[in-house]
Amino acid sequence: MGVAEEARGIGRRARAAANALADLSTDLKNQTLLGMADGIEEQQAFLLVENAKDLDVAAGKGLSTAVIDRLTLNPKRVAGMAAGIRDIVALPDPVREVTRTWTRPNGLEVGRMRIPLGVITIIYEARPNVSADAASLCIKSGNAVILKGGSEAKFSNQAIGEVLRGACARAGAPEDAVLVVESTDRAMVHELLKLEEYVDLIIPRGGEELIRFVAANSRVPVVKHYKGVCHVYVDDDADLDMAERIALNAKVQRPSVCNAMETLLVHEAVAPRFLPEVLGKLRESGVEIRGCDKTRALLDAVAPASEDDWHEEYLDLVLAVRVVADMDEAIEHIRRYGSDHTETIVTADRAKAEAFVARVNSSAVLVNASTRFNDGGELGLGAEIGISTSKIHAFGPMGLEELTSTKFFVYGDGQVRT
Amino acid sequence: MGVAEEARGIGRRARAAANALADLSTDLKNQTLLGMADGIEEQQAFLLVENAKDLDVAAGKGLSTAVIDRLTLNPKRVAGMAAGIRDIVALPDPVREVTRTWTRPNGLEVGRMRIPLGVITIIYEARPNVSADAASLCIKSGNAVILKGGSEAKFSNQAIGEVLRGACARAGAPEDAVLVVESTDRAMVHELLKLEEYVDLIIPRGGEELIRFVAANSRVPVVKHYKGVCHVYVDDDADLDMAERIALNAKVQRPSVCNAMETLLVHEAVAPRFLPEVLGKLRESGVEIRGCDKTRALLDAVAPASEDDWHEEYLDLVLAVRVVADMDEAIEHIRRYGSDHTETIVTADRAKAEAFVARVNSSAVLVNASTRFNDGGELGLGAEIGISTSKIHAFGPMGLEELTSTKFFVYGDGQVRT
Repeated sequence: MGVAEEARGIGRRARAAANALADLSTDLKNQTLLGMADGIEEQQAFLLVENAKDLDVAAGKGLSTAVIDRLTLNPKRVAGMAAGIRDIVALPDPVREVTRTWTRPNGLEVGRMRIPLGVITIIYEARPNVSADAASLCIKSGNAVILKGGSEAKFSNQAIGEVLRGACARAGAPEDAVLVVESTDRAMVHELLKLEEYVDLIIPRGGEELIRFVAANSRVPVVKHYKGVCHVYVDDDADLDMAERIALNAKVQRPSVCNAMETLLVHEAVAPRFLPEVLGKLRESGVEIRGCDKTRALLDAVAPASEDDWHEEYLDLVLAVRVVADMDEAIEHIRRYGSDHTETIVTADRAKAEAFVARVNSSAVLVNASTRFNDGGELGLGAEIGISTSKIHAFGPMGLEELTSTKFFVYGDGQVRT
Repeated sequence: MGVAEEARGIGRRARAAANALADLSTDLKNQTLLGMADGIEEQQAFLLVENAKDLDVAAGKGLSTAVIDRLTLNPKRVAGMAAGIRDIVALPDPVREVTRTWTRPNGLEVGRMRIPLGVITIIYEARPNVSADAASLCIKSGNAVILKGGSEAKFSNQAIGEVLRGACARAGAPEDAVLVVESTDRAMVHELLKLEEYVDLIIPRGGEELIRFVAANSRVPVVKHYKGVCHVYVDDDADLDMAERIALNAKVQRPSVCNAMETLLVHEAVAPRFLPEVLGKLRESGVEIRGCDKTRALLDAVAPASEDDWHEEYLDLVLAVRVVADMDEAIEHIRRYGSDHTETIVTADRAKAEAFVARVNSSAVLVNASTRFNDGGELGLGAEIGISTSKIHAFGPMGLEELTSTKFFVYGDGQVRT
């Protein structure tokens, strides 16, 4: 069987499972998820043995410590996977939720109701825990999922898939609700991107290169998550102590993630009071500063920021800093260099805060809070399958609701069009 | 200048206009739209002269009567374009609407707010009135629009674009809010599909071939509208007089549109009473019947329906008819052969109606009403830019809200992550 035929077979099976899943009750889906969590715990030894096979191969290939760390399962991480699934059991089921109803002049009662998307393909790199996370979010929202993980995690993903599929079968849900792609042939990804007949959405998770490849080659709709060039703007009406706490948290608490601050913008009226102190503290935390000329005049030994720095997602302890004339210039900077991900204004002036919120169209716009809150869990979605930076279908953290669509329903008593 | 460079120039201008449009007040957008409507009326003579150039070319090419009809402007159609724009002025502005707010345990006040998508490209065939319709919906929802119409309507579209852009400039809105692509080079469509850096959404309007071409080749997200294979299911608990009125309306009132009925499914318990009469009346209205064996046993001279007929979107006075054992079999038929567009059940049993609505995941599911109501105007959206049959971003009629996305906004008082 060729790769194309294999991919189409997977698509067909997922589509059949999706039809059955759409009809399942919330109870049955929750029973399935609880069975998955139990299975993950009960099969911990099996999962660790299979994971060890991947780690052996990885050691032989000389992969980086970071990749090997992401690839590694241990009892704590296995327990975390099970706990993550149980969290999703506790969330409300979005399927069949009526989001709105209204009545037309001719008496038709119209409404919108949430429905599953159908089949979702997740293409990701060497993080086996994504398999359980993504599968449980998809099943709770009534979607079948095709999991295409990195070849480095081949044995781990197959093992997790086996456990999850077993739980589906025991609970009476379709086993093919979770399909783990076995082939590690590079051509398989290409074939998966062509399954527009069977697959409704593709979510790539991983580095920018993977996401760009999927977006450029897919015939199936893709929800993308590109980089997060996140800004904090400190206004002249800011509480400067608060601004300092927010800037430090946004940069230092976890610099490697997409919602960490990459550029600090400061109103020129407060820059002389604010910048020397906050940049000193950032440096104490190991942050390298690259500044505009005005920043450099306020602090010694700041490297000059180049045009490239304003575009950069460092994901590291590096920060670009710019002094701006006012909020308008800050917004202009964000529109020109930002990535529509996350921006914060620190100000005590409510009118300016509201203007900033109205005018900045990033996926999350915050007032007096750290950029690090742009996260499904922190914003109250319960869990997230990713953060979309494109405005189509979903923008920002994607929770269960974002894995659904809505249909129109209409109750009449014999109306026809004239 | 090559086609690629020309396309990128258009993308850049549209993006700049979109940034300015997003900030405009509802009042200014409405003033712009009123100016467009006035301009269309005042420039009627100019529009008809330019349209006549297209009609001259079309006559020389021997295009079909149907194409020439769609291409033709006359005083009544010009007045219709202006009236359509004024209808959109009256609709509520979706931009900056807060759709939900909630508070997190740490005190963060979180909400979601509608924002424009940005830049929308409409690719359509030879219907010049689409230019005004689409442009006014895009502007009201704060989006810049790139219009790529069929080459047959070249002069008409340029003229309409000139009038609309003039109205933008007079009102103080960015002129480039409306950009009409001049090039009729086939390569231009390919280049427009590559503008993922500048364009947020592509909406193709026209035949299935055009839509498939765009979907297969675009790097920009596409909202698709494929065919409408719409079903009416007449249940054994149906009011048969009502069922007859609905079936006749759904098939005959306007057979050429996507929400017309293509297949009639009838419960076997009522088929002997229902089918001979309704099919007789459909025949009187000129409808050709293609039936299953049970249908053919009930009425003379019915051609047999082949497997292909169940898949067919006739868009004409032809109807496929099938007798089914019960609602389950009807739903199975719809899932197998339907196109997720529009389905109606006729039944007096509320429980069955609710089960049908819950289980059939088409863009509109109706009870005791004609399929012809799946339309933005009829469902109360005010106007529509198309009907999406894919579940990503929008499903069913797309009105102003479906031309927006939502961002998260967060008001804090100094919260940081721990």
